[in-house]
Amino acid sequence: MTTSHSAPLRITEVCLRDGSHAVAHQFTTQQVRDVVNALDDAGMHYIEVSHGDGLGGSTLQYGRSRVDEMELIETAVAECKRSKIAVLLIPGIGTVQELKTAHSLGAKLVRVATHVTEADVSAQHIQVARELGMEALGFLMMAHSAPVEVLVEQAKLMESYGAQAVYVTDSAGAMLPEDVRERVRALRNAVSCEIGFHAHNNLSLAVANTLTAIEEGATRIDSSVRCLGAGSGNTQTEALLAVLQRRGVDLGIDLFKMMDLAEHVVAPIMHRVPEINKGSLAMGFAGVYSSFLLHAERAGKRFGIDPRSILIELGRRKAVGGQEDMIVDVAAELAKQK
Amino acid sequence: MTTSHSAPLRITEVCLRDGSHAVAHQFTTQQVRDVVNALDDAGMHYIEVSHGDGLGGSTLQYGRSRVDEMELIETAVAECKRSKIAVLLIPGIGTVQELKTAHSLGAKLVRVATHVTEADVSAQHIQVARELGMEALGFLMMAHSAPVEVLVEQAKLMESYGAQAVYVTDSAGAMLPEDVRERVRALRNAVSCEIGFHAHNNLSLAVANTLTAIEEGATRIDSSVRCLGAGSGNTQTEALLAVLQRRGVDLGIDLFKMMDLAEHVVAPIMHRVPEINKGSLAMGFAGVYSSFLLHAERAGKRFGIDPRSILIELGRRKAVGGQEDMIVDVAAELAKQK
Repeated sequence: MTTSHSAPLRITEVCLRDGSHAVAHQFTTQQVRDVVNALDDAGMHYIEVSHGDGLGGSTLQYGRSRVDEMELIETAVAECKRSKIAVLLIPGIGTVQELKTAHSLGAKLVRVATHVTEADVSAQHIQVARELGMEALGFLMMAHSAPVEVLVEQAKLMESYGAQAVYVTDSAGAMLPEDVRERVRALRNAVSCEIGFHAHNNLSLAVANTLTAIEEGATRIDSSVRCLGAGSGNTQTEALLAVLQRRGVDLGIDLFKMMDLAEHVVAPIMHRVPEINKGSLAMGFAGVYSSFLLHAERAGKRFGIDPRSILIELGRRKAVGGQEDMIVDVAAELAKQK
Repeated sequence: MTTSHSAPLRITEVCLRDGSHAVAHQFTTQQVRDVVNALDDAGMHYIEVSHGDGLGGSTLQYGRSRVDEMELIETAVAECKRSKIAVLLIPGIGTVQELKTAHSLGAKLVRVATHVTEADVSAQHIQVARELGMEALGFLMMAHSAPVEVLVEQAKLMESYGAQAVYVTDSAGAMLPEDVRERVRALRNAVSCEIGFHAHNNLSLAVANTLTAIEEGATRIDSSVRCLGAGSGNTQTEALLAVLQRRGVDLGIDLFKMMDLAEHVVAPIMHRVPEINKGSLAMGFAGVYSSFLLHAERAGKRFGIDPRSILIELGRRKAVGGQEDMIVDVAAELAKQK
């Protein structure tokens, strides 16, 4: 199996998608226009614009967007001279129809995202995207939570559907550099498409993990300006670029312009400074979804157990979204053991 | 030359000293009491309490402390059942008399700090500390800015004065993991005392750099709860502990208690959330002192040069504190080249 070491390193700026979580999906058209304009001027490769939970995410369950994301995508496309607009799609939330609409508005790339063990639900969306002539990448979320051989098998599935890259997505910010190294290396030896990496900073390791992924051959990298992403944020774009420049890697993105837009365009629209706090650190340490936190706190109160002990046990059991019932069971068991 | 790999890993919490910068030296007695009490209860090894610029730093030049640091040290000592109180001393700012006073109040450890090329000014203070029966450690600041062989030579000087550990101090947050690896490894092969590491997070690499230092044999580690330190803050204590615990390293410090005190004791007293912004990233990227920033901005305006270009050139020339005149010269030269 050949690998694609020769692909150039390309950055996808995710502050207008992952950062949507951090602003409760309240981005305005003007904000998107300003951010995209500045990113395009700095030479950013791809800019992802979607609801935090991807196309179709604007619902009561996931949080209503202030502005229809299709309007935001159209606005973003209109601002781009060089950058390409990307979208995120989680099958089950977003539909093929929404993908087609985004494409008709000028989106050039889609990341089709599934839980790390559920790549099979991505087949249709990847195939449609390729038929539309879009770049189609696979996004394996919570990639830390599956054994490496499962990750490899799921990545192969996505590749077989036509994915041009498969991402190791550290949704909970739970990976250590050695975890990243092992996973990216295993994929590099198993697939011939590109490999991507998406980090969260819950353990303060997002930039370091991203450097490790690049060292191991990942060529599609996600990052967010000023760390504007869910929870503790992602790999901070301008910090990553500074480090890469110090290592002699020039991506054609203007570092000073990125620093300026982080300070003067992005920081002013943020609701809060992303930080590593009790909740986000617990997530990264336990390796579970942030949606478990509230449930664990409730169950902890009911059974007299530290909610973090519940989260850690859930992480051990590889609990996934939708298994909130398990939280009460775990709390009850821990209380019994006490 | 034997090395001290067998020394246990010990953490010095610096939020009440490095963090003093971040609160403009306005810590109150009550705040110090609460923070030290909680840290001691969690099992922290050492807690540094001093003005941000060390003993004697409370001056018009460095910023007046709200409360006399000797009172804060006395308060801190009274709260400790297990933790030891450390102080910082920069010769030229702090005096032998102040060191003796801090010792008489119960401080057990002093870090004597000099610029990386000026270890010779630390001799007297290290010797006095040892005579007093204190632990005396050397602290080589801006350690990235000197060639490795100079760092080694200066560390050997400190060891010859009686320093029981020598710190690689990344004052500007300018080091990449490979820089840390090279420096700690060189020291490990050259001195028999312990090696310490003190990071700043300007490039978002503080935790990763600290892990690298530990891998290379550093056993004295600085960190700050909730990243409460100068500029972008230091290695975040509770994140580091979580990562070490994930790697199976137990330091006898209670992680959950650390997370709780970060959230409920330290966060409420912070003036702002430490972040990587335009100024701090420029410092880390250029590798210069933060005190240069204002001068560079002024000179940049005068000569029509981006202040960051000035800072980068200053970093190349290894400018040190007190060389502010050089800033105007560099700006003028860059303007001529344009």
